[in-house]
Amino acid sequence: MTRMPERANICECWARDGLQGEEPFIPTEKKIAIINRMVEVGFKRIEATSFAHPKLIRQFSDSLEVLRGIKRPPDVTFIAIIPNDKGLDRLLEACHQGYGVQEITAILSASEDHLLANLERTFDEALPPLADLVKRARQAGIKVIGCIGTAFGCPLAGEVPLGKIIELTDWYLDKGATSIMLGDTTGEANPRQVREIFGGLKDRFPGVDFIAHFHDTRGMGLANTLAALQEGIILHDSSFGGMGGQPATRRPKYHRGFAGNTCTEDMVLMMEEMGIDTGLSIDDVIDTGLMAEEFCGRNLLGHVTRSGPVRRRRSQPLSLQDLRLNGEIAPALLFAGKMKEKLSSGQALVGYVIREALARNWPVPENLKISVDGVSVKEELGGRDILVTRFKVLAIEKSKNEAILEVLSQKADGDIFMAGQVTLAF
Amino acid sequence: MTRMPERANICECWARDGLQGEEPFIPTEKKIAIINRMVEVGFKRIEATSFAHPKLIRQFSDSLEVLRGIKRPPDVTFIAIIPNDKGLDRLLEACHQGYGVQEITAILSASEDHLLANLERTFDEALPPLADLVKRARQAGIKVIGCIGTAFGCPLAGEVPLGKIIELTDWYLDKGATSIMLGDTTGEANPRQVREIFGGLKDRFPGVDFIAHFHDTRGMGLANTLAALQEGIILHDSSFGGMGGQPATRRPKYHRGFAGNTCTEDMVLMMEEMGIDTGLSIDDVIDTGLMAEEFCGRNLLGHVTRSGPVRRRRSQPLSLQDLRLNGEIAPALLFAGKMKEKLSSGQALVGYVIREALARNWPVPENLKISVDGVSVKEELGGRDILVTRFKVLAIEKSKNEAILEVLSQKADGDIFMAGQVTLAF
Repeated sequence: MTRMPERANICECWARDGLQGEEPFIPTEKKIAIINRMVEVGFKRIEATSFAHPKLIRQFSDSLEVLRGIKRPPDVTFIAIIPNDKGLDRLLEACHQGYGVQEITAILSASEDHLLANLERTFDEALPPLADLVKRARQAGIKVIGCIGTAFGCPLAGEVPLGKIIELTDWYLDKGATSIMLGDTTGEANPRQVREIFGGLKDRFPGVDFIAHFHDTRGMGLANTLAALQEGIILHDSSFGGMGGQPATRRPKYHRGFAGNTCTEDMVLMMEEMGIDTGLSIDDVIDTGLMAEEFCGRNLLGHVTRSGPVRRRRSQPLSLQDLRLNGEIAPALLFAGKMKEKLSSGQALVGYVIREALARNWPVPENLKISVDGVSVKEELGGRDILVTRFKVLAIEKSKNEAILEVLSQKADGDIFMAGQVTLAF
Repeated sequence: MTRMPERANICECWARDGLQGEEPFIPTEKKIAIINRMVEVGFKRIEATSFAHPKLIRQFSDSLEVLRGIKRPPDVTFIAIIPNDKGLDRLLEACHQGYGVQEITAILSASEDHLLANLERTFDEALPPLADLVKRARQAGIKVIGCIGTAFGCPLAGEVPLGKIIELTDWYLDKGATSIMLGDTTGEANPRQVREIFGGLKDRFPGVDFIAHFHDTRGMGLANTLAALQEGIILHDSSFGGMGGQPATRRPKYHRGFAGNTCTEDMVLMMEEMGIDTGLSIDDVIDTGLMAEEFCGRNLLGHVTRSGPVRRRRSQPLSLQDLRLNGEIAPALLFAGKMKEKLSSGQALVGYVIREALARNWPVPENLKISVDGVSVKEELGGRDILVTRFKVLAIEKSKNEAILEVLSQKADGDIFMAGQVTLAF
């Protein structure tokens, strides 16, 4: 593990790779809201949109509006995928008007079969216009990620030789690309291969920034991320809820689309648990992941979104910040506390959980009181498996010494037992 | 990666850990059928059942019938979990009558809080009877896995010191345990910690067989498995469809139960793709995973079960065996072939796919013919995203030169497009 970096820089791809296969159109203001939230929680690289033709992927028909609407702190790099010259024309116009991106992704495949299937071009047909595109972007002061798709194998052509990846890396660097992305487009990679390929590339191109872009099609997204970390890769792509993959272009798919990018929430947790600094707080990341779920109207594929972060025993006093999304407290206490009191209502449950939490390791102001408003209780509690799956601070009113918590309790089968808001007085 | 083993031995835990949280009772004959299938496909270690009290976990009320019913080749080790003396009494009686197991799992937690929650005992209360249990089993010629649960962290107590794991390993070995299992009971482990703990234990106990038992609660099951492999761990636990976890004991859970053991199908694929010999064929494993899904009446959490194995371009002739579950052929061809003929029926689709497959890399006997029987076509094909998700050989009738294939085609949204049987004449 000699090359393992101390920090990693995760590029959040939900707004582009994550959405490109999403069928219902996500309203522009929601795209802007989630990108702004990504900025707030600390992502420094955000793939904001695609300049694919709006008729081909309707989801990106609002790419210019999205770029116009988002906040732009100077330390955040926004990235857009640019499939062709016309897309670049539109982007450069936006740059000219002050709402462009600092970095674009240029697309190529390591497998010619895939290149034909994806872009309907052979290498001979694809390379000259791509060289022009890279050159024009660089002349406009835009950095270029040279993306090499199907770098770890292609569902059409099978194995891809390392020599082809080296050749395309050389080609991209020669044309002016500022970093190289290896895309595991359809989830063919395995950790041994990832170490061999990234190890080989890092040896051969020691000064070059490589980006690991894995898909979780076969469940190996995090294992491959670990392998890439072990080869010193700092730049990683991921998407909230593990969304992403094949565009919704109505063309037959070249993979089965069962899973998309490696999941942001799970990747952040793994890295942070390993002591690799992502600059992100897992609670904030989960929170943003829940926002993505809300916008998509369904549970996505993140594990941590459901399980919560790994809990640490704390010695410092509990703050409201600690309670935020701290769903771990409740199931632990429900079990460990062995329910000495028989609880018969949602109100009692919430009170019990919070009071027990406080009575154990987390001293708080003495005058803590619990009141419950709008909690619906669908069934009696006695003896059932009830999980408190979400604690979320909706608002803190310091003047009133109050916080409004959202509480969600579910039964083991997923049915909602109790959902509502709790006022916590402190 | 200096310690990476060339082979791994996966213990299939579906029939015990996988089922312990499953609410509907799986009929005994189905448990027997799937265990027999596991044996057929090449698993050499199978956790067959639990001797938990039948009233506590009804799923295991048929443990003796299961053990009585399964086939028992001499090279397969069957394992049962034995929570207490009464369980051991029942097992020893079964052993006496010739249908016992060669190995048992004895249960302990690294965290006393978890021990209290799970077994309602302190260390002082738990260790003496456990020492007796290990001794009695060893005297009866049964090997004993010393399980240390919550070895990578506890949702109740937080971090677990390595010293505690070393102490309990020492204790188990002293009492006669023949291997040591570290259980990540609630999915708290991360790969760095896994390397540190297993690395430390392998240094300190070089001759001891350690078993890695991870849960995928936070999506890190395979990444942690990779880390364990990198420390030379050969024995790994997994469960079909990623099932498993908290028993369905009607007690409140100490974790949220969103994901169970690391998934067998995905683990086998990762290892085999990495060149680590599991002695298993991924097609057979997926097939058995589909059997588990059928028995549970729902899709489980395996990725590979949906995506299919990684496809390799082959140069050798296609055999009927290759066609088995070879769903990869179809979506690839549907795309790569660009559908030069307009297809309007399921029959044409099947014929097209198989003929194209043969026309490309896979020469077959010249007189290949396709006929379709019972194929239902719900919609026209033109231009839609259709995936052939399953090719399965149901029967081969050599005398008639015929094979019966089951074909399942789904649309991108998962709706069934076509399902039925195909007769392939050769």
